[in-house]
Amino acid sequence: MQFASDCFLIVGDARNADFYYLTKFRTTNPCIYLICKDGTELLVVPSMELRRAERESKVKEIACYEELGYKELIEKTKDRRLAFSELIIQILKECRARSVSIPHETPAFLAFKLKEEFDLNFENPVKARRVVKSAQEIENIKEVARITVEAFDWLMRNFNFKRCEEVRNAIELKLYEIGCIAENTIASSGKLSADPHALGSGDVEDHVVLDVFPRSRETLYYADFTRVLLLNKNEKIEEMYRAVVEAQEKAISIIKDGILANEVHAEVKSILEGYGFKSKNSEGFIHSTGHGIGLEIHEEPRISDEKVELKAGMVITVEPGLYYKDVGGVRVEDTVVVTKSGCEVLTNYKKWIKV
Amino acid sequence: MQFASDCFLIVGDARNADFYYLTKFRTTNPCIYLICKDGTELLVVPSMELRRAERESKVKEIACYEELGYKELIEKTKDRRLAFSELIIQILKECRARSVSIPHETPAFLAFKLKEEFDLNFENPVKARRVVKSAQEIENIKEVARITVEAFDWLMRNFNFKRCEEVRNAIELKLYEIGCIAENTIASSGKLSADPHALGSGDVEDHVVLDVFPRSRETLYYADFTRVLLLNKNEKIEEMYRAVVEAQEKAISIIKDGILANEVHAEVKSILEGYGFKSKNSEGFIHSTGHGIGLEIHEEPRISDEKVELKAGMVITVEPGLYYKDVGGVRVEDTVVVTKSGCEVLTNYKKWIKV
Repeated sequence: MQFASDCFLIVGDARNADFYYLTKFRTTNPCIYLICKDGTELLVVPSMELRRAERESKVKEIACYEELGYKELIEKTKDRRLAFSELIIQILKECRARSVSIPHETPAFLAFKLKEEFDLNFENPVKARRVVKSAQEIENIKEVARITVEAFDWLMRNFNFKRCEEVRNAIELKLYEIGCIAENTIASSGKLSADPHALGSGDVEDHVVLDVFPRSRETLYYADFTRVLLLNKNEKIEEMYRAVVEAQEKAISIIKDGILANEVHAEVKSILEGYGFKSKNSEGFIHSTGHGIGLEIHEEPRISDEKVELKAGMVITVEPGLYYKDVGGVRVEDTVVVTKSGCEVLTNYKKWIKV
Repeated sequence: MQFASDCFLIVGDARNADFYYLTKFRTTNPCIYLICKDGTELLVVPSMELRRAERESKVKEIACYEELGYKELIEKTKDRRLAFSELIIQILKECRARSVSIPHETPAFLAFKLKEEFDLNFENPVKARRVVKSAQEIENIKEVARITVEAFDWLMRNFNFKRCEEVRNAIELKLYEIGCIAENTIASSGKLSADPHALGSGDVEDHVVLDVFPRSRETLYYADFTRVLLLNKNEKIEEMYRAVVEAQEKAISIIKDGILANEVHAEVKSILEGYGFKSKNSEGFIHSTGHGIGLEIHEEPRISDEKVELKAGMVITVEPGLYYKDVGGVRVEDTVVVTKSGCEVLTNYKKWIKV
């Protein structure tokens, strides 16, 4: 891992994807992770987590707060945050660090204290590493994608739901049974679906936008998947859906190592415009074409106007949508892995679903 | 809400409990929340979230990034984070703020930018408000506590599990079915249970420490509950459990409005020591007596050596434990609400469970 300073520092717990990626330590307690220029790593955990960290984390050198004098620092400072900052400063000094790189999202209170002692650089070399997935990570995402499609297919074969809440509960429960956690699943119908993130409530109307993004309970990786269920004839909705399906399939056909994300996004926009669908004032195609996915549901790269080169091993979503207040919304979404010659769809499922 | 500066600012999404508490807006997109001295609030969201925020958030005044010129700032700065910081600076200036209070955990990159323009104070008035729960919040926690006990009781009446993983999966699935999400449930057995946070794996041995802390899928509030299941005779474990049960019941009997948290903690320590259980080197009673609970699993106050006055309406856990490498660990835990004259246990369930 490359970084500009003597050390790279992360504080956090397993909810911080960068921390989890580097340590593989599933903890809910805040810990300190440090890596020096020569590759030496150190993980500092509360003493009650020490033995577990030694067993479970992939970091070799592990210390606990208490043995480094944390309790004494709390007594001295009478302030936990200050004691925590001083503990980190002490550790960094023992590593002979003069400069420290930290992620942009580091707690400000700590960063201000570090700034008094070290040259501080905002930099996150983990993000750069996480954007291209390892073979194991791709396997993890494939598995959660497989489970997602399994649950979705089960839902389609057993669809007898009258209310959006029932649809959401049914697929979330099924996903849980087979190893995933899905929250905030979107099952929205009618005009309410014109808000891309409306969860949906009340009676199922003409169509349902079903957007599910489960996380594996085992590996913590995500997949992301959306289909429109066509329940009752609504020509406007079908026309919009035809356009987004075509735009999505075109995008998938051009995605490969080396292409620019903004080229993909431009292609999607151009197809939707070709169908006559305008975008303005919170209506039309009002989000990006997709986003990276992995240990976080949204991560780099963005598939938007930004000029970012896609590379083999990136895992991204491709999800054009159209939203009009007086009609409703549609979206179609797959999770794909970019390859040398194209991309592989991990959430293969038919696009036209009449229930 | 009282604060020292002209404005108090939070950036975050619904995973940030302070943000959710103030806005009641369930979003996974980063948003800006601002409150001025005169009580005026402003919530800024992405345009695709605008209509939903207007419907769902309890904040009255809502704007979207795009109408405030975010896109132009991205084009100007060629840097999303910088554009985001400049957008916030611009909003604060429009509010005529000269000083700004921010939580200690504010992203450092943003805080450094704010520091260039404003007097910055680290301060979090929301935490002070969240520590004493409203009647509605207590109802929410009561409901998740009730569900927790229901799932636990179901597990006890149907216990036929051979492996720790099965115990964990069974109660997590049951909890999910009846409205909660539980992750990282501890079902640890044998000597591994000497690590308080070991999840547990492999065959169920003499006893199981079952520690479950579900969150309501509806309200997002937590409960926290631990019992030891006694499976095969182990006198050491039973003796340890007798001590922690006595210590816990004594603690519960003295908790009331006005008592100091460190007095409760000292009482627990003294009872465990009275039984001859020593604490040193990661063995014995190696954590605090408890913690506040609400929208976060761990929040203020700590029931530890720190001198904090407990107040009616605080919801806390009471969870003494004992841990010895060569024997294993035990812990008993309830969620309670502090009242004027005592405390009310929200997770009522018998302590001695022989399966």
